[in-house]
Amino acid sequence: MSYRKEKDAMGEVIVPEEKYWGAQTQRSIVNFRIGPYASMPREVIRAFGYVKKASAIANCELGALSPEKMNAIVLVCDEIIAGELFEHFPLVIWQTGSGTHTNMNVNEVIANRAHLLLGNRIGEGEQLLHPNDDVNMSQSSNDVFPSAMYVAAYTVLSEQTIPGVRLLFQTLSEKAGEFSSIVKTGRTHLMDAAPLTLGQEFSGYAAQIGQAAVFLESSMQELARLASGGTAVGTGLNAPAGFSEKTAGLIAALTGYPFITAPDKFAALASHDALVASHGALKRLAVALMKIANDIRLLASGPRCGIGELVLPANEPGSSIMPGKVNPTQAEALSMVCAQVMGNDVTLSIAGAGGMLELNVYKPVMISAFLQSAELLGDACVSFSDKCVKGILPERSVISRHLAGSLMLVTALNPHIGYDRASEIARKAEKEKISLREAAILSGYATGEQFDEWVDPGLMTGGFSTGGKKGEP
Amino acid sequence: MSYRKEKDAMGEVIVPEEKYWGAQTQRSIVNFRIGPYASMPREVIRAFGYVKKASAIANCELGALSPEKMNAIVLVCDEIIAGELFEHFPLVIWQTGSGTHTNMNVNEVIANRAHLLLGNRIGEGEQLLHPNDDVNMSQSSNDVFPSAMYVAAYTVLSEQTIPGVRLLFQTLSEKAGEFSSIVKTGRTHLMDAAPLTLGQEFSGYAAQIGQAAVFLESSMQELARLASGGTAVGTGLNAPAGFSEKTAGLIAALTGYPFITAPDKFAALASHDALVASHGALKRLAVALMKIANDIRLLASGPRCGIGELVLPANEPGSSIMPGKVNPTQAEALSMVCAQVMGNDVTLSIAGAGGMLELNVYKPVMISAFLQSAELLGDACVSFSDKCVKGILPERSVISRHLAGSLMLVTALNPHIGYDRASEIARKAEKEKISLREAAILSGYATGEQFDEWVDPGLMTGGFSTGGKKGEP
Amino acid sequence: MSYRKEKDAMGEVIVPEEKYWGAQTQRSIVNFRIGPYASMPREVIRAFGYVKKASAIANCELGALSPEKMNAIVLVCDEIIAGELFEHFPLVIWQTGSGTHTNMNVNEVIANRAHLLLGNRIGEGEQLLHPNDDVNMSQSSNDVFPSAMYVAAYTVLSEQTIPGVRLLFQTLSEKAGEFSSIVKTGRTHLMDAAPLTLGQEFSGYAAQIGQAAVFLESSMQELARLASGGTAVGTGLNAPAGFSEKTAGLIAALTGYPFITAPDKFAALASHDALVASHGALKRLAVALMKIANDIRLLASGPRCGIGELVLPANEPGSSIMPGKVNPTQAEALSMVCAQVMGNDVTLSIAGAGGMLELNVYKPVMISAFLQSAELLGDACVSFSDKCVKGILPERSVISRHLAGSLMLVTALNPHIGYDRASEIARKAEKEKISLREAAILSGYATGEQFDEWVDPGLMTGGFSTGGKKGEP
Amino acid sequence: MSYRKEKDAMGEVIVPEEKYWGAQTQRSIVNFRIGPYASMPREVIRAFGYVKKASAIANCELGALSPEKMNAIVLVCDEIIAGELFEHFPLVIWQTGSGTHTNMNVNEVIANRAHLLLGNRIGEGEQLLHPNDDVNMSQSSNDVFPSAMYVAAYTVLSEQTIPGVRLLFQTLSEKAGEFSSIVKTGRTHLMDAAPLTLGQEFSGYAAQIGQAAVFLESSMQELARLASGGTAVGTGLNAPAGFSEKTAGLIAALTGYPFITAPDKFAALASHDALVASHGALKRLAVALMKIANDIRLLASGPRCGIGELVLPANEPGSSIMPGKVNPTQAEALSMVCAQVMGNDVTLSIAGAGGMLELNVYKPVMISAFLQSAELLGDACVSFSDKCVKGILPERSVISRHLAGSLMLVTALNPHIGYDRASEIARKAEKEKISLREAAILSGYATGEQFDEWVDPGLMTGGFSTGGKKGEP
Repeated sequence: MSYRKEKDAMGEVIVPEEKYWGAQTQRSIVNFRIGPYASMPREVIRAFGYVKKASAIANCELGALSPEKMNAIVLVCDEIIAGELFEHFPLVIWQTGSGTHTNMNVNEVIANRAHLLLGNRIGEGEQLLHPNDDVNMSQSSNDVFPSAMYVAAYTVLSEQTIPGVRLLFQTLSEKAGEFSSIVKTGRTHLMDAAPLTLGQEFSGYAAQIGQAAVFLESSMQELARLASGGTAVGTGLNAPAGFSEKTAGLIAALTGYPFITAPDKFAALASHDALVASHGALKRLAVALMKIANDIRLLASGPRCGIGELVLPANEPGSSIMPGKVNPTQAEALSMVCAQVMGNDVTLSIAGAGGMLELNVYKPVMISAFLQSAELLGDACVSFSDKCVKGILPERSVISRHLAGSLMLVTALNPHIGYDRASEIARKAEKEKISLREAAILSGYATGEQFDEWVDPGLMTGGFSTGGKKGEP
Repeated sequence: MSYRKEKDAMGEVIVPEEKYWGAQTQRSIVNFRIGPYASMPREVIRAFGYVKKASAIANCELGALSPEKMNAIVLVCDEIIAGELFEHFPLVIWQTGSGTHTNMNVNEVIANRAHLLLGNRIGEGEQLLHPNDDVNMSQSSNDVFPSAMYVAAYTVLSEQTIPGVRLLFQTLSEKAGEFSSIVKTGRTHLMDAAPLTLGQEFSGYAAQIGQAAVFLESSMQELARLASGGTAVGTGLNAPAGFSEKTAGLIAALTGYPFITAPDKFAALASHDALVASHGALKRLAVALMKIANDIRLLASGPRCGIGELVLPANEPGSSIMPGKVNPTQAEALSMVCAQVMGNDVTLSIAGAGGMLELNVYKPVMISAFLQSAELLGDACVSFSDKCVKGILPERSVISRHLAGSLMLVTALNPHIGYDRASEIARKAEKEKISLREAAILSGYATGEQFDEWVDPGLMTGGFSTGGKKGEP
Repeated sequence: MSYRKEKDAMGEVIVPEEKYWGAQTQRSIVNFRIGPYASMPREVIRAFGYVKKASAIANCELGALSPEKMNAIVLVCDEIIAGELFEHFPLVIWQTGSGTHTNMNVNEVIANRAHLLLGNRIGEGEQLLHPNDDVNMSQSSNDVFPSAMYVAAYTVLSEQTIPGVRLLFQTLSEKAGEFSSIVKTGRTHLMDAAPLTLGQEFSGYAAQIGQAAVFLESSMQELARLASGGTAVGTGLNAPAGFSEKTAGLIAALTGYPFITAPDKFAALASHDALVASHGALKRLAVALMKIANDIRLLASGPRCGIGELVLPANEPGSSIMPGKVNPTQAEALSMVCAQVMGNDVTLSIAGAGGMLELNVYKPVMISAFLQSAELLGDACVSFSDKCVKGILPERSVISRHLAGSLMLVTALNPHIGYDRASEIARKAEKEKISLREAAILSGYATGEQFDEWVDPGLMTGGFSTGGKKGEP
Repeated sequence: MSYRKEKDAMGEVIVPEEKYWGAQTQRSIVNFRIGPYASMPREVIRAFGYVKKASAIANCELGALSPEKMNAIVLVCDEIIAGELFEHFPLVIWQTGSGTHTNMNVNEVIANRAHLLLGNRIGEGEQLLHPNDDVNMSQSSNDVFPSAMYVAAYTVLSEQTIPGVRLLFQTLSEKAGEFSSIVKTGRTHLMDAAPLTLGQEFSGYAAQIGQAAVFLESSMQELARLASGGTAVGTGLNAPAGFSEKTAGLIAALTGYPFITAPDKFAALASHDALVASHGALKRLAVALMKIANDIRLLASGPRCGIGELVLPANEPGSSIMPGKVNPTQAEALSMVCAQVMGNDVTLSIAGAGGMLELNVYKPVMISAFLQSAELLGDACVSFSDKCVKGILPERSVISRHLAGSLMLVTALNPHIGYDRASEIARKAEKEKISLREAAILSGYATGEQFDEWVDPGLMTGGFSTGGKKGEP
């Protein structure tokens, strides 16, 4: 490999010839050999493309930057946004907590790449753009890294998480409709309980996901507030008047998302409570998903020795040793994602609480953990929806057998004979291994006709009530 | 102690004579000797007073319960709400996960206490009220325990947490105003940075708390949705038509809070995502408070060997061995509360994800952890506000000395001489231990006059700009 | 209530006449109204009894304290240890992070109570003991609060947690033996799998608990290292030579536990990694217990519509609405405890990481969360063992039916006909709803005789092998 | 791209021509599009190389596998171990919770690659090795995936984590020695406190890290117990007698680490408490590191407006806007790693507790989170040691100024004049902004000579005592 010399305020360093980065990026590579190479999320790099482009245009419109320089910056930013320059962003998450190294990486790549696009050789000749004075004009890592964080978070939530969650909501809702007439035994404490329909069960899942989606979306409002214009400590030092609003407006226009300038720049640099809050909404989604994943694999357990009321799609052989085995693998993948998200939530909290004075210096870990959660949840919802929920079938024979056997149909007797006598009947049936109807008749508390009138599983679910019956909803 | 016999569906048990509880409560005492006696939060018991009262009135209005029985129930509920019967609620958090034991404790106490109020001796004579058939009419633990949980949570948030947070917000805002003209050095990465005002610093804190309050309040919307009327598995079995809406409306009327019936009863029994989400908002508040507590003790560190820019009220001697020591004890108490809340958030998440099929059976731990967080945060905000923030004074001499010494005033030179030369000046000053002004002049990049014009800390904070100066916001 | 005046270095305060505490305690009451009254754990107060007693004896033996003063201190400490003075310890967890207020509470109570025991009236006459100069001699809150923490933690682990865990281990082991000849279907991914015995299943639980106990015990070694003698910052300032070792030795002698002096006093004041580590062991125990609790309620699910292979003791009626219902309530209480412990682990971690320079100032929350976990786990293990595991019965008819129906017995064919053909057979049986034997014969890959010879569930568990058969362990 | 057909028990699928994987791997690619491609850690793949190699040799030695097949397997395993086949392992973490897909990926690659090495074209001709019958002989994913997990975990801890931690311990210890004669002011509650030496401060850090290393190493003992031989559910079905011990012994011989067979295979498949426990030790290390990172950046804060007692190496320009700024970037990277590890610990706990019956199905997320923590901590310790701690210099002038000014030197007066009078002196000095010595003399409690004799900072640290002085250690 051949190398060239690059220089920053601290002196010269050697950089691989074919890479666009400069001295500060190179120092970071050398100083931070922690974890996999280039782990800084690409979504952050792409978001920086928007932030730098908007900043350059704003600076130009405010008279601080020449149109020539602005154009040069914009040209490279468009390449960054298009994903063409990722190989020039080698830095890791585990760098300075302000993300300065990545900001400088972007600044350096823009300056050098522009130099190249203008027909020069990197490292030779006078550069049109200075990484700090021009590309970083009116900016500090302390405000643009947060802007890039929030642009990345908002974008991934909008384009990957929410669509995935909405798809799953849709699929669960469809299943709720499809299963609306299948009466089955309910289970509380995992024990046989009063009946409900399979559709009602799935409507509960859909409701959980629907509410989680609403809450997640509402949490995004704060994420739309950008720190740009706060510069070093929130005062806006060295940024021209109007820069904040103009930049945020440009980012909104470029991305199509409703970004505005953060009302309090001091809080916007020193803390990332919006990210903590929004990840709290992701975590709540994970909590709901884990419950649903557990339920579905439980209802599908078997096929012969479990609950066995659902049949999941058989996507692949389940076992390397047990032939013919099929497993609820999508539920497992989903629940593993949820465990990761629940852990990430703690990471975000600790990092969010760790800010010191004018700057939170846990920015890279916050955005990387956030994006991991957002992306995994989005992907896993799509996978769970498409490869599992969509293909779920009820095992009607098992459902019917269970319903017929459930002692908890006895609950329908309460309004007629009281809790204590109903208890007696249920315990008699269980003890003597007879049916509830038999036990009711033997107890003398109800005739067969009364039993048949009072105990109607369909009516008990509320879904099939012909109305007017006392004690039914 | 003398005892009487009580009976439930399983048979007889012995109960202390002077206690109102019955057989099922006694079984729970014996079966669950885990942790301190009577740990079920009193707020849950009081909330049950509202839920049982509203249910009785609704049952009566819907023709299912006689006015006589309704009145008897209401009478005891008013005592429960008034806090007069706490000694009759001996159960612990660590019982059945549905809270059934506490629901039955309430049912039994109401039935027995009513018997007493009607002039009888408990355990003798025919009882007007049956714990299950009358007091629990149209109800299941599975729906009324959640209702009591959410009433308790909503109430504590409204009456203890939010007022505490609002008070702290107010005090921080006042301090931001009070300190608005004190220019000081900023610090990023804990290192000297560009200046800001002490008021700006506190405005950041106020902004964090204000936004946390808004988010917390918005999370309460879902908590206002009550499960009552879902009964055993969400279908409303054995509850008369209209019971859900009527009960929720009555609870709203009795408490003064905007409770409504939960739109999806299946989700409302099987999961408590609303509680998980709202605790996520409490955790976000804790994250913000920990940051602020850390900042304030850091700025007040010293008095002679630390940063020393703030003086906190000296509320008590600080050390048992070091005479005259004063410590930031309120910040410490607050940050300890935050650590507990951040742990509780994980408890809530795990418990929330652990629901199985038609019922989440982590209800008691969820509400107890939630209420602990809500109460501690409310109390700690009041304490921190009144005993610490309110009395904070700036140490002006230290603030001035630091500001004058900070090398980062150099940032103001960027627009005039560029980042690289400004860097040179700063490093020269640090290396030669001279002032920035001296270094600037020695460097030849600026005259003394230019330096004085360009480097004006007040202007650098934006707060004192006379307008029109290039490079100032 | 009548009051008396008390005085400390900051001046006078008013204290309830009948209470033994002094000025600093009273200041803390007023300044820290956070959460329930007197929440500082009593185990910490009792541990302080040992620490103060040992310190007084050590001071006396080293010639720094008169025998008269030593005797007075010891007398009161014995009352504290006996639990007679708890009403005089009103302080909360949420105080100064060093626990200084509680240390001073102890110092003041000892000084005042001794004054009373010597025939005086509190607040009148010359006191023999000065809270700081005598009772706190050679001590700082910074070293004695940690000592009390570790004495309390070690004691609770030894007397409550470990015995509970050991009991549960014993009960599980007994069940493993009792169930050793019951062959049943295994389940992986919740799906039917190769067979094992019920005893093997329980042996796995026992193994988990046994290993958790060993790990917990090994974590206690570090907890036995006491900070006493480090005084204010770890240097031992104002403590006589030999004080550390002597005090630790005395505490060991008084408690019967192997306490020694901490090898590094700087770490011992500034961090509590030993507590973090030991709580990590408690958390690991919670992880194991939650798995076991989940398994047992899953295996006992039903009785008619679940897995139903186990019958748990019916300790109480399970439902307020569903008559005759019995629920796995002990498993629920246990799993709720585990959720709390897993949250507390995060609290401990955040608090442990939050130490600053010479002192960790999260001590009270660390010890209170630790003790809560240790006590709840100990209690819950006893409860789960006695009220649940001990009484578990196998439902043999269900176990047999499941075993006979399981398609995964097919695994035994692998060594004879290969995985692919065995797969074919299993899928054929499932698809055509016929028995595995039938499918095997129909497939032509095995005769009925071969099937019977190859597929022997008992042999497949390894437990009943007659030896010599190829492919069996 | 060209494709070939592959087949498994479920039928045919299309696979890229140049890849060695088979049908089941391809199904997993299609079914699990969650997160980044090929995210299953390479350490797990490499560990599988050892496990499959050892299994083949054991099978051969036990007479179950022909030497020809064994040799073919071993050949490919050696390539896997050497890292030459990574491109053939495309699967993600978020697959089936048993890791079956990755096990089958390994089985398929071995079978196909062997076919190639034997001079054939993949997809053509009779294959010597069947993925299930030969490569997976005597194995189930349920036991070999855990074996690979533990081999990977043990290896990374041994080769990356422990060496990093040991290096940091060494560097901190050296600094403790280097700084042993620098007396400085201590700080408790961030407030000025009694003095200690800078060496003592660093000895505390070293002690924390040393103890964390010991605890981590002790946690590895359980990780050395391998599940191999348990096969499907722990019974060892289809594995020849002696296979467990032989395989573990072979893995030990091949890796050089002390692996043995797990004593309880049921627990070894159904739970991963050893991994939870060992990660608890990693988390404890993270807690310690975060404390140390915070301390060091606090002591180095400034250079002019902070504590400023340490100077950290200036590795790179600190700010994109503030020229000449140098930041504690290594401490920031380290503390971000710690936040991630503390979150991962929750992931591990939830996943570990989520096991169901005979199998924990969170295996991939458990090992991936574990390895991330182990690797990041190892790398970060090296980086922090080499790029930060090694180059730390004391700022002696600041240290001396602080020490001289600290009012807490007053503590040395306690044994001579008592706590109350000493308090008076300290408060007088603070109030009147005079030196402690002046205040002492003015108070009349000590002469200048007495003060000078009694208050000797060096003596107060214990480190320079000439012995025999009353009240000094």
